[in-house]
Amino acid sequence: MYQFETKIRVRYAETDQMGFVYYGHYFTYFEVARVESLRAMGYAYKELEAEGIMLPVLEQHIKYHLPATYDELLTIKACIKQMPSVRMVFEYECFNEKEELINTAETVLVFMNKKTGKPTRPPQRMIELLEPFFTT
Amino acid sequence: MYQFETKIRVRYAETDQMGFVYYGHYFTYFEVARVESLRAMGYAYKELEAEGIMLPVLEQHIKYHLPATYDELLTIKACIKQMPSVRMVFEYECFNEKEELINTAETVLVFMNKKTGKPTRPPQRMIELLEPFFTT
Amino acid sequence: MYQFETKIRVRYAETDQMGFVYYGHYFTYFEVARVESLRAMGYAYKELEAEGIMLPVLEQHIKYHLPATYDELLTIKACIKQMPSVRMVFEYECFNEKEELINTAETVLVFMNKKTGKPTRPPQRMIELLEPFFTT
Amino acid sequence: MYQFETKIRVRYAETDQMGFVYYGHYFTYFEVARVESLRAMGYAYKELEAEGIMLPVLEQHIKYHLPATYDELLTIKACIKQMPSVRMVFEYECFNEKEELINTAETVLVFMNKKTGKPTRPPQRMIELLEPFFTT
Repeated sequence: MYQFETKIRVRYAETDQMGFVYYGHYFTYFEVARVESLRAMGYAYKELEAEGIMLPVLEQHIKYHLPATYDELLTIKACIKQMPSVRMVFEYECFNEKEELINTAETVLVFMNKKTGKPTRPPQRMIELLEPFFTT
Repeated sequence: MYQFETKIRVRYAETDQMGFVYYGHYFTYFEVARVESLRAMGYAYKELEAEGIMLPVLEQHIKYHLPATYDELLTIKACIKQMPSVRMVFEYECFNEKEELINTAETVLVFMNKKTGKPTRPPQRMIELLEPFFTT
Repeated sequence: MYQFETKIRVRYAETDQMGFVYYGHYFTYFEVARVESLRAMGYAYKELEAEGIMLPVLEQHIKYHLPATYDELLTIKACIKQMPSVRMVFEYECFNEKEELINTAETVLVFMNKKTGKPTRPPQRMIELLEPFFTT
Repeated sequence: MYQFETKIRVRYAETDQMGFVYYGHYFTYFEVARVESLRAMGYAYKELEAEGIMLPVLEQHIKYHLPATYDELLTIKACIKQMPSVRMVFEYECFNEKEELINTAETVLVFMNKKTGKPTRPPQRMIELLEPFFTT
């Protein structure tokens, strides 16, 4: 299992007239959490695209428990529970400043060859960086 | 069952460097589809908030089948399959210009009293407008 | 002079907790107004990129007079006052449903060769479509 | 003069199909820069709204020199050159990782009483925090 925590401060632009973070902005937060999780492990998402691999989202699920408000410093715990193959699954728990769980979510992504548009395996360097977290 | 189709044209701002609509923007499209579905039925979402009722999202799920590209005129078929009580569920099918199904999604919303923060029933006028679609 | 009016309905996602359209979203509205202005004239912005020409923004200015609110159907009058050369300038007046002027803005764009990154002239077909509006 | 530097990392969501940051997202970056500038001085923007004062944008200007790309860590130098009265003016210089100036911009904001909708003076505590930077 690989786990990483990212802090994200809510921007004014991300609130709506209900006074809360608009429900669609969490998906941007999760993208940031994925990117920072990989960076912390030693892998820049940029490298992936430079190698001709894209990582589109196949499926996204979220349950909202509490709203987030302007300027809050949110903590997103992102977690990869299974060694990625052609697919990579991220699970998240998002907490507010009072450490209350405000939502839980999951993203299924697929490694895709940019030229052929076909599913592919993750790059070798990413596999090597991830493997230590999944060996028993 | 109540069903309505909304057309949404992809904006440049909504594409990302992969050349497709960013996965997080579909939730804005679905919000537009919900609002236009209610408007077509005779109910403006604005009225709801004017009556002191908010309609936050409790849960959101989406499966992406194909990407959408810049300037495409998407068709979102939104559907309410069950008479809303405290909760209202929207299901969507999103099609591109070639009439290919590009994603399917579902949103669970809850009617909430703005003052008390507690779940509440939909406004009477909305119930009256919806009922004819759910009587057998 | 070439002029065109585009209608844009304010989305919930575009409001902020002040209860108004977030100041940064008007630039997306102006992009839509530019694209629809060109389309009305017979030119799809898509064609431009297909011909290897990009049209990045060089300069943007806006004066806000009144806020816009959720669900308002805004009217954006976009205007090209001078025959575009390497640069194209759009001026806008944005009106709310009460026909009040809510902001005025201007965008300077530059035609750029995608490969060389250098400024270039507009495509011949666009020139032909625009010329009738600028001959005396 | 009061000056402060904010670092902002470009999110994938903020790129467009040209492969650059969409021109409209810089206004969100500038908002973050304003908020962080005030926070660094000891003033949370939140306090302002809690005191019944809003700070809408009156005017915005930007000149784009170079594009920003995905994952770049941008530096925004925000500067208040004059002691704010009813209006507050922020000037910005935005730099990429190579320390190239990528754009310059200016925002004019107005302190506004939330209830009356009328211009007002900045809160006393903000005045006291700002004054030392403007006395000769």
